[in-house]
Amino acid sequence: MPKQLPVVAMDACCSPLAREPLSEDQAVELSKLFKAMADPVRLRLLSLIASHAGGEACVCDLTDAFDLTGPTISHHLKVLRESGLITGERRGTWVYYRVHPEVLARLSAVLVPGDAPVPA
Amino acid sequence: MPKQLPVVAMDACCSPLAREPLSEDQAVELSKLFKAMADPVRLRLLSLIASHAGGEACVCDLTDAFDLTGPTISHHLKVLRESGLITGERRGTWVYYRVHPEVLARLSAVLVPGDAPVPA
Repeated sequence: MPKQLPVVAMDACCSPLAREPLSEDQAVELSKLFKAMADPVRLRLLSLIASHAGGEACVCDLTDAFDLTGPTISHHLKVLRESGLITGERRGTWVYYRVHPEVLARLSAVLVPGDAPVPA
Repeated sequence: MPKQLPVVAMDACCSPLAREPLSEDQAVELSKLFKAMADPVRLRLLSLIASHAGGEACVCDLTDAFDLTGPTISHHLKVLRESGLITGERRGTWVYYRVHPEVLARLSAVLVPGDAPVPA
């Protein structure tokens, strides 16, 4: 069974930064996602999973790209999973990971630079 | 004179995560930007600046939104500035901040979820 993900309160989040200021709650939720991505290994893991054939990758597909131990890779995957950026599903011997495309899409939309309002 | 920004090696960075894996160097550069955004106060500052009338905001426009001391706000603005996300220019009494829209645009583009390649 896929492990249940913590609910990330991103449903109504957020207008682009350049359109209106974030609320405190929105900023707290977004900062958790950016914190999960504030590490080069986790960013590479995220990109390896997101770009893997079929949109999912097994731990066995990921470890060769790094000069790191299995437990270290597992720790980073756990951080990504707990943030809600990826999901993991055990099938047989391996856990298969996928990104949550809707979470990436929301982050992408929040960062779109826009025309700031013109002074009145 | 505007303070010279550290060069952020984002010129050639990056294809969307979902299209191809990040290189180690790309992941290091991107992680610095996400680290700067991995804090709720900094995210709110970034959104207040980006959405402010005329696309720029003075420290005097920012402090009222927070229950924080001036030096704490200044520290967070310094982190944002050193990351390359914003620029600050002193004019008279105040420093005026703007976001670098091209940096936001690149981050937004990196996170666009795409169709992962189909297995061969």
